Amino acid sequence: MREITVDDLPDMARGAAVLGTGGGGDPYIGRLLAQQSIRRNGPVTLVDADEVPDDAVVIPTAFMGAPTVMLEKLPAGTELTAALRALENLIGRRATHTVSIEAGGLNSMIPFSAAAELGLPLVDADGMGRAFPELQMLLPTLGGVSATPMALADERGNNVSLRTLDNSWAERFARSATIEMGCSAAVSLYVLTGRQLKDLMVHGTITLCRRIGAAIREAHERHADPVAAAAGELGGRTVFQGKLVDVRRTTEGGFARGHAVLDGLGTDLGGRMDVSFQNENLVAERDGTVVASVPDLICVLDTDTGEPVTTETLRYGLRVSVVVAPCDPRWRTPEGLALAGPGYFGYDHAYVPV
Amino acid sequence: MREITVDDLPDMARGAAVLGTGGGGDPYIGRLLAQQSIRRNGPVTLVDADEVPDDAVVIPTAFMGAPTVMLEKLPAGTELTAALRALENLIGRRATHTVSIEAGGLNSMIPFSAAAELGLPLVDADGMGRAFPELQMLLPTLGGVSATPMALADERGNNVSLRTLDNSWAERFARSATIEMGCSAAVSLYVLTGRQLKDLMVHGTITLCRRIGAAIREAHERHADPVAAAAGELGGRTVFQGKLVDVRRTTEGGFARGHAVLDGLGTDLGGRMDVSFQNENLVAERDGTVVASVPDLICVLDTDTGEPVTTETLRYGLRVSVVVAPCDPRWRTPEGLALAGPGYFGYDHAYVPV
Repeated sequence: MREITVDDLPDMARGAAVLGTGGGGDPYIGRLLAQQSIRRNGPVTLVDADEVPDDAVVIPTAFMGAPTVMLEKLPAGTELTAALRALENLIGRRATHTVSIEAGGLNSMIPFSAAAELGLPLVDADGMGRAFPELQMLLPTLGGVSATPMALADERGNNVSLRTLDNSWAERFARSATIEMGCSAAVSLYVLTGRQLKDLMVHGTITLCRRIGAAIREAHERHADPVAAAAGELGGRTVFQGKLVDVRRTTEGGFARGHAVLDGLGTDLGGRMDVSFQNENLVAERDGTVVASVPDLICVLDTDTGEPVTTETLRYGLRVSVVVAPCDPRWRTPEGLALAGPGYFGYDHAYVPV
Repeated sequence: MREITVDDLPDMARGAAVLGTGGGGDPYIGRLLAQQSIRRNGPVTLVDADEVPDDAVVIPTAFMGAPTVMLEKLPAGTELTAALRALENLIGRRATHTVSIEAGGLNSMIPFSAAAELGLPLVDADGMGRAFPELQMLLPTLGGVSATPMALADERGNNVSLRTLDNSWAERFARSATIEMGCSAAVSLYVLTGRQLKDLMVHGTITLCRRIGAAIREAHERHADPVAAAAGELGGRTVFQGKLVDVRRTTEGGFARGHAVLDGLGTDLGGRMDVSFQNENLVAERDGTVVASVPDLICVLDTDTGEPVTTETLRYGLRVSVVVAPCDPRWRTPEGLALAGPGYFGYDHAYVPV
């Protein structure tokens, strides 16, 4: 158990955006939201998953939507509390803890904001060990936990609650409600007991985010290689360096979808690389051959600074490096691959682990 | 207060489909649903609006969606109870009565099914005095009643609840949830006190439906003019007789939209008539001149039998008559016209009362 102040946030947001593999929302906006809530309400208590009592009522908070839209349609700050309170009313119990459902610049910071506003301890964990675009893609889904009852809230005061047959139906209803809310919404879902949290979530994510974020910053400050530093913390490797020469991106079906074309610098990390994304980076191909795909992590970083580049901020001319890293081993099981492997996203190639 | 048995249903369903002005769902399916519920649970008690205590908890039930789809995707029968129970849970109170939100072949019969299944008395009233395509188009909206909390349920067991800023937002969220449910959903909404019911709903609709339905049947049986009989009961007039020569219809945005072209028989009820619809008939034009428009009633009836023709069953070759009739006077106020007049539906002509 330790206190998190605003000084801890920049490294955490940077590291979270690396784990976010291009998605999970903008780290700058996430950091500002968390910062504002902590300044107003005091530091957030971060607790290890192992410290959470088995009968705790853990209620995650997040933003859902298209990151392309969230860049311009900023949260009002009241939606998160509204979503969590609505879910508490549905279940007739109060949250004892909150937690992040995914690592990502915005969605790792959002629970800090909720924790500060509501006076709840935040658990050092997340539901994916990365970010994924659809809400059923959570390790607790593999463990049989229902995403619903679930509540969505917007900045106007609208509120939608769901109880669905399964977590894929929850994604469908929540996505269409999010679209009506203007392509971004605060959500609260996947009520977990402390026991479920310990058994089914990824432990230590927030701490890992800070470590990654700090490693990048320190390497950059001492003129070392920040991309290599990030790869080291991730247990991954750099597979490409080059320039972004084309990006196609549309906001459709409530997602930011598209692909980026990178032109290699002629080193052994060169060639042409194509990165396809749906909020998050899904597949990286070099000269038509798959180098890495979901559920493994494909992280696009600024070559000079090591700063993670989210899919909504990809633009012509950026000098970037691509780092790939292994996902949580539970994603590599047949059930994990069925939920979030390349086949689910419509790719016909088999999953080849990084 | 009187008991309604299955023998009362055919006339009621027919008359309701006349008031439904082409929408409100298929009368045959509505009748079958009500019939099955009454056979299983016994007759339904119909009470006058004036008999309802001021502090009664009146919860309307209906189906929402595109009638084109409802023709093929039949209700399972469990959705209605699920929607009403979900709404009761949201408000923490039990319904004492149910009522129809709109006249229409399906949506006048649905509350009979709900009343029989749940053992509730049904109030002889509705919220429009006709059918309209969007859920905010209810007289209680003009009286300041909120459509939400609202619950939607489908035949699979999915459940969506709404609390929205206003009734137009309720329509948006409910429509997109209905689309995800396959373009038809059971809904429960507009919780009313007995006092609000008495002040804001249209009284005597169910009785009127039966009277219209019986007048048509009896005129047809004695080889009199069933269309004239319907017009007489509606306080309206026949403006056209002819043959349906073209119909364009798409299911889009969760609605059945389109228009029908009628070719006149050369009498003083002749010429060419165009009828545009969005679930319900919206505007009737003869040779380019508006004859009638929302919020007034435009009813397309089979010329021989007087049977109402819903917009999803319009087809080439039908011999039809068009009857127009005045709407409830509250729809003719500036507020009523803003909610459901021709301007709302994108027509630039002024409203000319029938």
